Amino acid sequence: MKALVYKGPGKKAWEEVPNPEILHPTDAIVKIDTTTICGTDLHILGGDVPAVTEGRILGHEGVGHVIAVGDSVTNFKVGDRVIVSCISKCGVCEFCQKGFPDHCQSNEAGVGWILGHMIDGTLAEQVRVPFADGSLHHLPDHVTDEQAVFLSDSLPTGYEVGVLAGQVRPGDTVAVVGAGAVGLSSILTTSLWGASKVIAIDTNEFRLEKALEFGATDAILSDENTREKVLALTDGLGVDVAMEAVGYPETLQLAASLVRPRGHIANLGVHGKPVELPLDTMWIGNYTLTMGLVDATSTATLLKMVASGKLPSEKMGTHEFKLDEIEKAWDVFENSAKERALKVVLKA
Amino acid sequence: MKALVYKGPGKKAWEEVPNPEILHPTDAIVKIDTTTICGTDLHILGGDVPAVTEGRILGHEGVGHVIAVGDSVTNFKVGDRVIVSCISKCGVCEFCQKGFPDHCQSNEAGVGWILGHMIDGTLAEQVRVPFADGSLHHLPDHVTDEQAVFLSDSLPTGYEVGVLAGQVRPGDTVAVVGAGAVGLSSILTTSLWGASKVIAIDTNEFRLEKALEFGATDAILSDENTREKVLALTDGLGVDVAMEAVGYPETLQLAASLVRPRGHIANLGVHGKPVELPLDTMWIGNYTLTMGLVDATSTATLLKMVASGKLPSEKMGTHEFKLDEIEKAWDVFENSAKERALKVVLKA
Amino acid sequence: MKALVYKGPGKKAWEEVPNPEILHPTDAIVKIDTTTICGTDLHILGGDVPAVTEGRILGHEGVGHVIAVGDSVTNFKVGDRVIVSCISKCGVCEFCQKGFPDHCQSNEAGVGWILGHMIDGTLAEQVRVPFADGSLHHLPDHVTDEQAVFLSDSLPTGYEVGVLAGQVRPGDTVAVVGAGAVGLSSILTTSLWGASKVIAIDTNEFRLEKALEFGATDAILSDENTREKVLALTDGLGVDVAMEAVGYPETLQLAASLVRPRGHIANLGVHGKPVELPLDTMWIGNYTLTMGLVDATSTATLLKMVASGKLPSEKMGTHEFKLDEIEKAWDVFENSAKERALKVVLKA
Amino acid sequence: MKALVYKGPGKKAWEEVPNPEILHPTDAIVKIDTTTICGTDLHILGGDVPAVTEGRILGHEGVGHVIAVGDSVTNFKVGDRVIVSCISKCGVCEFCQKGFPDHCQSNEAGVGWILGHMIDGTLAEQVRVPFADGSLHHLPDHVTDEQAVFLSDSLPTGYEVGVLAGQVRPGDTVAVVGAGAVGLSSILTTSLWGASKVIAIDTNEFRLEKALEFGATDAILSDENTREKVLALTDGLGVDVAMEAVGYPETLQLAASLVRPRGHIANLGVHGKPVELPLDTMWIGNYTLTMGLVDATSTATLLKMVASGKLPSEKMGTHEFKLDEIEKAWDVFENSAKERALKVVLKA
Repeated sequence: MKALVYKGPGKKAWEEVPNPEILHPTDAIVKIDTTTICGTDLHILGGDVPAVTEGRILGHEGVGHVIAVGDSVTNFKVGDRVIVSCISKCGVCEFCQKGFPDHCQSNEAGVGWILGHMIDGTLAEQVRVPFADGSLHHLPDHVTDEQAVFLSDSLPTGYEVGVLAGQVRPGDTVAVVGAGAVGLSSILTTSLWGASKVIAIDTNEFRLEKALEFGATDAILSDENTREKVLALTDGLGVDVAMEAVGYPETLQLAASLVRPRGHIANLGVHGKPVELPLDTMWIGNYTLTMGLVDATSTATLLKMVASGKLPSEKMGTHEFKLDEIEKAWDVFENSAKERALKVVLKA
Repeated sequence: MKALVYKGPGKKAWEEVPNPEILHPTDAIVKIDTTTICGTDLHILGGDVPAVTEGRILGHEGVGHVIAVGDSVTNFKVGDRVIVSCISKCGVCEFCQKGFPDHCQSNEAGVGWILGHMIDGTLAEQVRVPFADGSLHHLPDHVTDEQAVFLSDSLPTGYEVGVLAGQVRPGDTVAVVGAGAVGLSSILTTSLWGASKVIAIDTNEFRLEKALEFGATDAILSDENTREKVLALTDGLGVDVAMEAVGYPETLQLAASLVRPRGHIANLGVHGKPVELPLDTMWIGNYTLTMGLVDATSTATLLKMVASGKLPSEKMGTHEFKLDEIEKAWDVFENSAKERALKVVLKA
Repeated sequence: MKALVYKGPGKKAWEEVPNPEILHPTDAIVKIDTTTICGTDLHILGGDVPAVTEGRILGHEGVGHVIAVGDSVTNFKVGDRVIVSCISKCGVCEFCQKGFPDHCQSNEAGVGWILGHMIDGTLAEQVRVPFADGSLHHLPDHVTDEQAVFLSDSLPTGYEVGVLAGQVRPGDTVAVVGAGAVGLSSILTTSLWGASKVIAIDTNEFRLEKALEFGATDAILSDENTREKVLALTDGLGVDVAMEAVGYPETLQLAASLVRPRGHIANLGVHGKPVELPLDTMWIGNYTLTMGLVDATSTATLLKMVASGKLPSEKMGTHEFKLDEIEKAWDVFENSAKERALKVVLKA
Repeated sequence: MKALVYKGPGKKAWEEVPNPEILHPTDAIVKIDTTTICGTDLHILGGDVPAVTEGRILGHEGVGHVIAVGDSVTNFKVGDRVIVSCISKCGVCEFCQKGFPDHCQSNEAGVGWILGHMIDGTLAEQVRVPFADGSLHHLPDHVTDEQAVFLSDSLPTGYEVGVLAGQVRPGDTVAVVGAGAVGLSSILTTSLWGASKVIAIDTNEFRLEKALEFGATDAILSDENTREKVLALTDGLGVDVAMEAVGYPETLQLAASLVRPRGHIANLGVHGKPVELPLDTMWIGNYTLTMGLVDATSTATLLKMVASGKLPSEKMGTHEFKLDEIEKAWDVFENSAKERALKVVLKA
């Protein structure tokens, strides 16, 4: 089969590789019908994720059909149309049993994200999915691939690490710093918890346009008065929940400055360096700061919302390519601001 | 002033009475601009609420302007435009401090609903509001009286006793038995918690039409196959949350029969007799049954949602009258099914 | 091996049967070191549980050593000392993934309790445990069999269906109607959630004595003034949480009469007939009534508390027998009130 | 009367001042029977709290008797024995109504702590208590002053900002960095939520001794191997909840390094400068960091636990003085480590 193989920092190739095979009785093999590229894949190519070694097939999102199952797999059979979760959960370690498979202890790294990371991934014609019973989702006929492919990772990330961790509640005001694919996923899914006001903040006008389409009620082109503008849009005390979806010290500091006493700060960004937080002024505010990886335990819920027509997840996909045009798709995604792209959809 | 006075079972009169006066330093006097009639008022007139004695001015919902305040009132001043809550909360008893003013212990009956019940109410040109600081809500200019008047009681009841007590969560399936004003309030406010499917059940086609307008995804004209129809609309196991908004043994038994294991049954109906529940089959299902009075602690949240354009509360009002046409409005409301009425709006 | 075999209503035999074998790759075989008899086993012998057919080995509690594992079992190996959970959870159905394995859908009945029910159980020298990875618990050396055997079912039932479902919170007052093994398990585990007052109610003095040993602060020998006595022990409004651990209409009605407004009624009893509840007076009280089967998802938590010396679970065992004296043990347990017995411990 | 008056940084005097008087109808005057000094009072004397101006009577903790009430006070009457809360809650602002009176908006600073801060405090023979109905607590006869005085602030702080914000749950492992009065309050109250293991960490041996008396299961004399010792006491992954009760960057960084994935870090310390947090390694851990002021909304709960004999709050008081020996008491408290003091008790 063909797959996108990591060749060391800055290098990748769409090339012929052996087909995956069942290695454990809990495995399934899925033929990929539709997949997409994640911002994390860009980081990997940049050499920022040392656990990814040369020769690894990238990718951890996808929709497809089951073409083989191991002896222990009971929930899925050959022919089933499925979503492949970005998280492979063993289901039996302490963390999985507590509902936190992002920290699945079945591998040495103690993480649930292994596809396209510690084992071969979904940017390929086929993929081996470990722990298939807990890591695949049946896909109803009337949900399209273009809707479902964002339920592997993108939407669950925005929803879990932003909306759920940030504890958005009906009536809340929300600010989202950074309206890229992750921030927009948060914006889109605030609707599930009845936010009354959702303020998107970015330096890019295209993203702010999109944010308004995705459900933001207000958009702020970020400058030195951002905080004042947010306070003016609330009651002078700030928002109930501020989300950071960029990953820099300045953006987290900005998010932290936007919340009212008792507010929540939800960090979605992947940080590359320490962040200095003004605990000397913050300690008194009864803030809660959360951070983390996606669990993808919300995929079933989000799928129900998509299936019932209440979550237009297909809006995330702005560009479509054939799977073997993946290098071209990668370029578009890498230059998403310029290309006015959010997520690219790759079809087999 | 003029007011609607209870004259004993079956009798009422719109007649001249003395203006209300400040009795306690925590009181405010509100001039009523817009009010409405509650199903409970019908019960009172029927003689079903013995605590209401002859001479009592009825009503516990309304929007108006403050025309006098007691010495301790700090949140409101003369001229303020306000919603009068159906709950008068002292704010200092154990129940109020815990956030449960429906059981405010400041009166002998130990309830928070005293307007039009133990003291004179809002179906009048003016009303004395006890504990004004905690029992009034400031009303933003751009929210209309016709939107706000249902935030005194109707919408909070549907939302608190149905959606909140029933613990509707994103992705949930919900069935509502009884699509009158209360059931419709629940249906309308399920949107705040991301229900994926909302099934309205009633014997009246007009109400089912309305239910679909209010956000129900499915409507079932109730008959002996109702349960089977609900199971067919879910996955054969029933809904996550079933609400009962009628008040009869049969309807509660029906609601209880519609939930899946681990499901919630939220009783909104006012019951007149005991109800036999099949604990012999239910005990194993890990069900939760809730019941209760409104707190009206959600009024602030619902007001934010109305103010942000996300909750079209004005849909509850189907008929409008002058306040002094109240006897005519009463007749329409009393025959709501025939009159295709939900709530009547009375304007001063 | 020898096992206790159900021979139809009223009949059982401790007799030679074939050893269990691995049937599925997720199975383990456990040699039973210590086990106990459950009240449910008495019901089964009485013929009340039709799903149990002649020839079935009874029992669903036990501690032992793993002597064989299927190919997919990764958490356990031969020689491991383990607790066998009363719940066999597949881990992959919707209910298991939500943390509700009591309604595991891996079998037609849709329940997690299958040992000694739909498959052979633990009142035997060996037992086959399905879904071993999620259904066994590693047992630390310093926790004794006599402590651990009650973590299979007894303590989790009292804790989950009583304390957790009843939402006991620090400072709460609690009443427990029925101080048998289940009610005492609830009483013992209220300490984990900081109850301020725990009132045991029973008709049996021995059980009330035990209740005080298990942490009850007050004991009431039940009579027609029970409610008044409970009100006198609280502030006249009743307890925060009332648990029913008997299973009759009268006891559930009593429990329901003991709670204050906004209180919780947790039903632990197994009911044989419908129960009439006074919804006509209850509807206004904002009560929550819960009921259900144990999940045994709390076993890991309870084991930590036992291991840290904070939960003296061994107190549940009042009588000890050899496993092949099981018929004698059964008689003692069946006459527990007369024998001053709570739970019997059976040692291989 | 006599009172302890702040005279500018480093200066204070126990001197004659005018008696307090009722200024608002919601005020009460309380004669102080027992009071204590808070670490915050030391900070004030150090000049670190600019809002405290010369001439201010210090103190925000105390037990006494009501000697006068304003016209609106309904919950309390002259003669009542009461706890004075450190938080004066108006009960009607948005924050008070949400249960967050620490951010009460009734004053310009938007805080609930005003006694001994923005108005005269409790280190005096009498004190005016604003919003008396919500800011005093009735004290049962059998609870001593020496138990109750720590319910004004000390225990609620340790409990709310440590145990509640840190979300300690049954079975959890907890580490507390800093075993002074605040850290010990957290340690003492972890018992209300069923912690299985509580690890105290300090550089002072006296405090570690006390920690073990207060319920810690382990004590670590802090050095460069503290983290390794904590990991060795858990399962190598760290604790569920780490509390910081000192207020320095290093101690918060230490606390943050002790939690397992999905763990909670509860900051209790008052910080004087920003803190650099390693978000580059932390972001992936799904941690929750909380911080804040006390609400004192838990005083009623803690009082119930003290009243029922389950919380030996009197252990906090290690030294007793006459009220007019306050300057001597201050010296002891200021040198608490050397004096082997936790809290000093001052009796009128």
